[in-house]
Amino acid sequence: MIEDIRKGNRLALSRVLSQVESGSTAGSDLLEQLFPLTGHAHKIGITGPPGAGKSTLVNALITSLRQLPADPQVAVIAVDPTSPYSGGAILGDRVRMLDLQSDPKVFIRSMASRGALGGLALQTEAFSQVFDAAGYDFVLIETVGAGQSEVDIVNLAHTTIVVDVPGLGDDIQSIKAGILEIADILIINKADHPGADQTLRNLRTMVEMGYQFSQSAKHRLQSPPSQPASQPAPTTAWKPPILKTIAVDSSGIEALRSAILKHAKWLKQTGEWERKDERNIRATLARQISNLLFSNWQSQVDPALMETTIQTVIDRKKSPQDAIRSLLAL
Amino acid sequence: MIEDIRKGNRLALSRVLSQVESGSTAGSDLLEQLFPLTGHAHKIGITGPPGAGKSTLVNALITSLRQLPADPQVAVIAVDPTSPYSGGAILGDRVRMLDLQSDPKVFIRSMASRGALGGLALQTEAFSQVFDAAGYDFVLIETVGAGQSEVDIVNLAHTTIVVDVPGLGDDIQSIKAGILEIADILIINKADHPGADQTLRNLRTMVEMGYQFSQSAKHRLQSPPSQPASQPAPTTAWKPPILKTIAVDSSGIEALRSAILKHAKWLKQTGEWERKDERNIRATLARQISNLLFSNWQSQVDPALMETTIQTVIDRKKSPQDAIRSLLAL
Repeated sequence: MIEDIRKGNRLALSRVLSQVESGSTAGSDLLEQLFPLTGHAHKIGITGPPGAGKSTLVNALITSLRQLPADPQVAVIAVDPTSPYSGGAILGDRVRMLDLQSDPKVFIRSMASRGALGGLALQTEAFSQVFDAAGYDFVLIETVGAGQSEVDIVNLAHTTIVVDVPGLGDDIQSIKAGILEIADILIINKADHPGADQTLRNLRTMVEMGYQFSQSAKHRLQSPPSQPASQPAPTTAWKPPILKTIAVDSSGIEALRSAILKHAKWLKQTGEWERKDERNIRATLARQISNLLFSNWQSQVDPALMETTIQTVIDRKKSPQDAIRSLLAL
Repeated sequence: MIEDIRKGNRLALSRVLSQVESGSTAGSDLLEQLFPLTGHAHKIGITGPPGAGKSTLVNALITSLRQLPADPQVAVIAVDPTSPYSGGAILGDRVRMLDLQSDPKVFIRSMASRGALGGLALQTEAFSQVFDAAGYDFVLIETVGAGQSEVDIVNLAHTTIVVDVPGLGDDIQSIKAGILEIADILIINKADHPGADQTLRNLRTMVEMGYQFSQSAKHRLQSPPSQPASQPAPTTAWKPPILKTIAVDSSGIEALRSAILKHAKWLKQTGEWERKDERNIRATLARQISNLLFSNWQSQVDPALMETTIQTVIDRKKSPQDAIRSLLAL
């Protein structure tokens, strides 16, 4: 199976992904065997509010990456965290992506959160490990950017692209404030729409402020040399470029591709690539351990006692804290 | 302290919330003492994409609820899950809410996810318990609706209001598909904008489909009488109304208020109110136990062994599964 997916057998790859998604022992065993082969793919997160045109941008970016002289393999994980109940597919997006499916070096996999054992972030990480081990050079992770779960997903990427559009309401400022800090590259898509220059000015001010702040924070942190030698701060900071694109006609996509390649180079030169890998492994281990501890506990607790305890809480005869104390004392 | 907040002492309430937010033992003790007093407030989740005008809608709704003959107390928890890094406040929104702060029976509390011990959903639940115990009749929980964490937050509400606006991009369809299933009331805000009727038609079709589906699913489920007698399905299904509003001039807010009161009545008549309470308590207990198990484990594991084990994974000499096996075997 592993031989097959390394050789580019798409059916085998599809099967491995499904087994991993199902959470079966076979899937877990496959992941374990694939792990030593990972660590090479450039993982790129693409996030932004609904309506920003992320899928169109991803499509244009795939085409552009495929034209690189190195003839790279490109995988896409389309995460749909908005559909925890229906597990529904985003039909329109998938249809648009169909023309790319004929390229044997492009693989697009959609993932709904339903059935995501252990959470969406773990599942996305597992998928990107499969693609990585299968020899894919780029793994694009597309997600609606808003909540903590999306941030978790994006955190596993080497490069995070935040997509904005002109003319969204004032609420959108709340998105920018939080999400700007995770952006390595900022995109103003639909740049032919009215208000693009205003959006550009706003983003530029915010990036400039964030950059100044991070520089001064770094300076403050470095004054007492308390950081462990194994984790020096990058010598040159990365200043997120702000690029205008019109994804529907591929305007600006070449500049985006250049920025991505430049960021990869910066990551490797500064050692940030390895640090991101390390942070990612730590976070993944913590999540997996947490899930295991809980499921182990669940399998050991007496179901009858659990039910009566929960009932006393529902009846307000016991506080949740009390209930937990008696349940964990077992 | 508890006496004080029951009497309407805002400073005391503010202090209790801060202690609960800090995760201190005092905060946890207070929550425990307050718990028996909970179970009365009508918790209402308001969610929707950025730019939908949720804050304006919430403001108008507070004003409208305050005009009810019963003279109810209204609390708002404004959750900002988009800001996991900055913990930044949504300044604009808060400014707009300032005029309401002079009303002694309205309390608005903003909450960033930074410092949310045990996760945003637990923190929101804790806050709503404080307001509930303090005698607030309505607790509005406002959040950007997109990811799993928002769904978790919204799940603790009795009534979920999903706010949409005309003219968002095609990506927004992905929001609707997932979030529609949690909506008890659907709002098309900014209904004077172009495309409102199209949005209404789309939503109506989707609600109709969802309703038919849930009815047939219920029918299938009921054929073999396998459900426990304690949890009968509601005899009459709730069909989410779709309402047009223009929150900036309070158009349609009275109809929204009526729908909320009607939903509360339906919840109580069908026993769904108690079932929601029970589900909420179960989910909260599970989250708290999971967090505790992990922090207990963390405090017991040998840090040196943990570091060397993680390092072998980073070096790809050990798989994460292997590492977890050796770490949990302790």
